Amino acid sequence: MDYARLFPFWAQLSLEEKDALHRSAQTVRHKKGALMHRSAENCKGLMAILTGQMRTYILSDEGREVTLFRVHAGDVCVLSASCLLDAVAFDVLIEATEDTDVLMLPSPYLSEIMENNPYVELYLYKTAAEKFTDVVWTMQQILFRKVDQRVAQFIWDETARTGALALRITHDEIARYIGSAREVVSKVLKYLAEHQAVELRRGVIHVLDKEKLKIFL
Amino acid sequence: MDYARLFPFWAQLSLEEKDALHRSAQTVRHKKGALMHRSAENCKGLMAILTGQMRTYILSDEGREVTLFRVHAGDVCVLSASCLLDAVAFDVLIEATEDTDVLMLPSPYLSEIMENNPYVELYLYKTAAEKFTDVVWTMQQILFRKVDQRVAQFIWDETARTGALALRITHDEIARYIGSAREVVSKVLKYLAEHQAVELRRGVIHVLDKEKLKIFL
Repeated sequence: MDYARLFPFWAQLSLEEKDALHRSAQTVRHKKGALMHRSAENCKGLMAILTGQMRTYILSDEGREVTLFRVHAGDVCVLSASCLLDAVAFDVLIEATEDTDVLMLPSPYLSEIMENNPYVELYLYKTAAEKFTDVVWTMQQILFRKVDQRVAQFIWDETARTGALALRITHDEIARYIGSAREVVSKVLKYLAEHQAVELRRGVIHVLDKEKLKIFL
Repeated sequence: MDYARLFPFWAQLSLEEKDALHRSAQTVRHKKGALMHRSAENCKGLMAILTGQMRTYILSDEGREVTLFRVHAGDVCVLSASCLLDAVAFDVLIEATEDTDVLMLPSPYLSEIMENNPYVELYLYKTAAEKFTDVVWTMQQILFRKVDQRVAQFIWDETARTGALALRITHDEIARYIGSAREVVSKVLKYLAEHQAVELRRGVIHVLDKEKLKIFL
């Protein structure tokens, strides 16, 4: 396991600190759909995503979900260690959206190191600030852009990220990622299909024409 | 000027660093309505609010404004120094909502100190993370709560913050704070007035009955 690549603060740890984290680190598999984090009370630790994908979301009293951001293989999930960050005082939920393997550094061990090593805390807050950027972007999308633009943007970003023109994803999943309702997403997708930007097959959205899709961004 | 109270990282500066910041610090007055920060390009520095109030907001292409959070006397405005924070990659606008005096530590001087002193950078990111908390709260309000609750909550919080039952504020200002439209806010206020929770006078909202107002939260 390449700790130095997964956790950029690794170079600033002493040998003893590296050794303590090495011995406490755990590889954990989360099945698709598993809730990995529910509130600051079950604050497991810092997770580097080895394979798979997770999403961080907020939930209303009525059960409405809004996805704040996603993390993919190679990213680090810092809000699963939010108990280490006094200045982060909000609760989010974190769900595995695919079968996901993570390398986890448990909170108690990190906490001990943080007391003497400001670089670990700085890394955690920096990573949180990157997520702050993602959340402001999400907020701008939800508040300022129309739902058809957001669906088109989501498909556009996914093809860019995965390098594939066929996306295996349900309308319901897209709705939860962009903070909308399934019916609305289905309607927009039908509209995009009528304009030959995409083709809809069972469980798959196939991008037919990226230039046409771009018009809807 | 009590630098140690305004800037909590002060105790972790060397004498030379303190001296450099002392000599570069500026007291600046911003008139009500002045735009103090427009984008990362005019990144002036870290501002401690001495008197007054500022709001940080985002703006859509169509000119719609959504207030992310406000800062008051004794608070520090960190996003006016966002160029110092690589991980913060979004643009906000910052406006003085009252005549506001700030003590500003200019970015170039802070930047130099940050190269050798991780505690300054840690402080900036920690403060940014507190604002992250505010923004998630704002997002939950906007996405999950009805506009009448948000108006009532705003009035409730303002009476708690100022300790006064009479708020000198226009309907338009409330609309911009809670990310709604003036007409909508006026309608809700009329509704609250009909229920004897508030009384509306020219330029003033008077809270008549806090218990009645609480029902609308």
